[in-house]
Amino acid sequence: MNKDLKLIEDRQRETAIFGSVLSLLGWDQLTYMPKKGAESRAEQVSQLSELIHQKVTDDNFYHALLRLKKSKSLSKKEALMVKKLLKGIEKSRKLPEEFVKEMSKVTSLSYMAWEKAREKNDFKIFQHHLEKVVELKRKECNYIKEPDHPYNSLLDSYEEGMTVEKLKPIFEKLKKDLKILINKIKDTEHYKKQTPLSLEVPVEQQRELCHDLMKRIGLTEDRSRLDLSIHPFTQTAGINDVRLTTNFRKSPLFSFESTIHESGHALYELNLPEKDAYNILGSAVSLGIHESQSRFWENMVGKSRPFWNFYYSQFKKISKLDITEEQLYNGINFVKPSLIRIESDEVTYCMHVILRFEIELGLIEGTIKVKDLPKVWNKKMEELLGIIPKNDVEGVLQDMHWSQGAIGYFPTYALGSIYASQLFEQLTKEKKGIEKQIDKGDFSEISKWLKLKIHQHGNTLLPEELIKKACKKGLDVDTYVSYLNYKYSKIYGFKK
Amino acid sequence: MNKDLKLIEDRQRETAIFGSVLSLLGWDQLTYMPKKGAESRAEQVSQLSELIHQKVTDDNFYHALLRLKKSKSLSKKEALMVKKLLKGIEKSRKLPEEFVKEMSKVTSLSYMAWEKAREKNDFKIFQHHLEKVVELKRKECNYIKEPDHPYNSLLDSYEEGMTVEKLKPIFEKLKKDLKILINKIKDTEHYKKQTPLSLEVPVEQQRELCHDLMKRIGLTEDRSRLDLSIHPFTQTAGINDVRLTTNFRKSPLFSFESTIHESGHALYELNLPEKDAYNILGSAVSLGIHESQSRFWENMVGKSRPFWNFYYSQFKKISKLDITEEQLYNGINFVKPSLIRIESDEVTYCMHVILRFEIELGLIEGTIKVKDLPKVWNKKMEELLGIIPKNDVEGVLQDMHWSQGAIGYFPTYALGSIYASQLFEQLTKEKKGIEKQIDKGDFSEISKWLKLKIHQHGNTLLPEELIKKACKKGLDVDTYVSYLNYKYSKIYGFKK
Repeated sequence: MNKDLKLIEDRQRETAIFGSVLSLLGWDQLTYMPKKGAESRAEQVSQLSELIHQKVTDDNFYHALLRLKKSKSLSKKEALMVKKLLKGIEKSRKLPEEFVKEMSKVTSLSYMAWEKAREKNDFKIFQHHLEKVVELKRKECNYIKEPDHPYNSLLDSYEEGMTVEKLKPIFEKLKKDLKILINKIKDTEHYKKQTPLSLEVPVEQQRELCHDLMKRIGLTEDRSRLDLSIHPFTQTAGINDVRLTTNFRKSPLFSFESTIHESGHALYELNLPEKDAYNILGSAVSLGIHESQSRFWENMVGKSRPFWNFYYSQFKKISKLDITEEQLYNGINFVKPSLIRIESDEVTYCMHVILRFEIELGLIEGTIKVKDLPKVWNKKMEELLGIIPKNDVEGVLQDMHWSQGAIGYFPTYALGSIYASQLFEQLTKEKKGIEKQIDKGDFSEISKWLKLKIHQHGNTLLPEELIKKACKKGLDVDTYVSYLNYKYSKIYGFKK
Repeated sequence: MNKDLKLIEDRQRETAIFGSVLSLLGWDQLTYMPKKGAESRAEQVSQLSELIHQKVTDDNFYHALLRLKKSKSLSKKEALMVKKLLKGIEKSRKLPEEFVKEMSKVTSLSYMAWEKAREKNDFKIFQHHLEKVVELKRKECNYIKEPDHPYNSLLDSYEEGMTVEKLKPIFEKLKKDLKILINKIKDTEHYKKQTPLSLEVPVEQQRELCHDLMKRIGLTEDRSRLDLSIHPFTQTAGINDVRLTTNFRKSPLFSFESTIHESGHALYELNLPEKDAYNILGSAVSLGIHESQSRFWENMVGKSRPFWNFYYSQFKKISKLDITEEQLYNGINFVKPSLIRIESDEVTYCMHVILRFEIELGLIEGTIKVKDLPKVWNKKMEELLGIIPKNDVEGVLQDMHWSQGAIGYFPTYALGSIYASQLFEQLTKEKKGIEKQIDKGDFSEISKWLKLKIHQHGNTLLPEELIKKACKKGLDVDTYVSYLNYKYSKIYGFKK
């Protein structure tokens, strides 16, 4: 084999393996690690991250890639791998070492300040740190310099190929359509009379339901597991080793719904092409596509009528359920503008994302100042959802993303929702009668279809190309709006 | 700081941190890892081990140590660190790279063959592999060449300073004395009438008892945890982060006794001097001393009369206990020659170790052939304990040690027992009335004393020096025999 090719394959393998160790350290930290192990864990993580960073940024690796880029004997797949690797490396080589170190220091302090600000419900504690973060992110845009809008340089890291120029009109349209939909819902009799579900399910039964769900989705216990953590997440600790977490909260539906969401992520990870497990082509394609998988299972499947036809009787067996199947289904799909993104319903969810996107754009353009954020946040909240936070903890301080420098990340949540609706539309077209299988608690056909359409492609296409291949059309917000209109017109009884 | 000194401190820190990551990988593999994650885990472990190996064997590190050895400006502690590091490195540098690779390959195959041989109850499957292992271990002795008996080169890795010349007469004496003691016990009326304990404790209560025990020993949940695995073990996953495991078996005492044993190991690890956490002086001194800690808690404390005065009432609360306190205490200390080392009682335990030591000596000297092992084993078993295994699974195939090349390891189990009895004798001399505290379930004074006498010294003395400092005398088998005689004469009612 070509010496350079061997070098880049070995290097990718090595960093992938160390990367999976890092994932396990992260999983353990949030599940089982004794509290006082934190300091030592931070040192383990930092030393291992540093090692990986050295291995992906060193000159040998870069120069091998440059030589390979010019080579004419590469297969199509090899050429794609070289191209993808070079793109990432050239991006990171644009950032001066000093800048990277400063960013790491600033975000680490900023995250701690964010935690403290939340504790004290005082944005001022966080403000100064966030100002530094925003300043550095603006600098980063300047170093990276993707074409057109500076924000593109951030967005592209999370969703390759996506730009402000494409996204802004899509989100404008979505905002307008959601406003109309929310108003329609609010005008119904059903909305005015609705009360939230009140269910009680013992923790042990909740756990059993979650395991049952995972198994039906295709997550067998020889390749995955479910543990507890404060916030649910999914980590890949190795090939054939995916760890999901959940939490048992006041509402017994929390563990169930978060488990189906995380199962979507986990299934994607487990179905990635094993032959490429140790190179860049075998990884997930983007955050937006990853989120499409979790939201597909959480919403399109997990909040559908046939799904609850099946699970109504399961819940009935284990809890005092004195409501009808329809009442349960409606309760699961309860719509009401609320303050916290991660607790919001399917209809209002994207409004939370759009709010953050608009603020991020303003911060990067310089038209919004950090010190004005609480005011700006509350104003936008009123404009988009008609409600105003009583304090910053349930407002601008609710998400950790900005404190860690993750600006440009939020849009992928909405993109995931849109992609998910497109996949669902395509699935029901291709697999007539799939509802009847869901109705029986049989999700195997769906899992297989997703593997074929999304998972097995790994990282060989751009996100939008992948969706186009799967659904015969690119990103299409109208599909999403139609899906919501159709579903909620039935629940709330209004004309589409 | 001296440049070389900085290099060796940085290097030790780096390898200690990666080493603790390796420990976590091992812990996870035996507790929570989904089955099919095994292959990927093996790659993580091998890659990380390889990295550590490179870091401790490279020339920069070695040459820095050689220069430091000649330096006159080192503190006493620094000089000791250099001396200890050099000893280890020079030892490993004596082994040709080819040899190390072969050993790794051979033992990996041999371990699998051992597993299979056990499954099929067929020593022949293992024989050929073990022959290779023994051949390589004999080569290893030749490379290392510690003075006198070739076996010293193996023994010294597990128990620094220990030699065949010292150990052989000690084990001869112990064997003779134990034989007398066992015969005295067997001759009593009590022995002839004894029946094993039969207790029932629900798993949840067993778990609570284990946690209670850990807490009383000083293992708080912010620095330690207890999980489940097939065989109990203890791993240090970082500073202030020690993981114990247990298992709920047929006898409810298994989890309780294994937890107190592992707690002894864990307490040692947690009490090692934190200022030396990242250098060789901060580690445990030897396997024998480590085992002295676990066996001290398991036997000298955990099988003592005052201990069971306290726990009798705890057990009574949670199980149908229709026996007296004395019957429970006697049942815990049930003596009967049996076939499996890890299930044997306090009196016969060392006979199992001596048997293995004698066989190992024969294998290294060449006077015992691998092919004859089943016969030799059974003959020695009859000679030492008067019983004969029905098959090799309960005979020569019972321990995994040899399959992994761990020849020279077994003696540390007996050394640990002897050291433990010496520590117990010294404790009761220095802390009059300690039994009254044990009687109340208060073990804090004992933990403090062990920290002072053993734990806090880390790896600054040789094992025997440490015991001499703590107990005013070196390794002393008579103390151990007296301890057993005194305790069991009371239980079985014979004259000492």
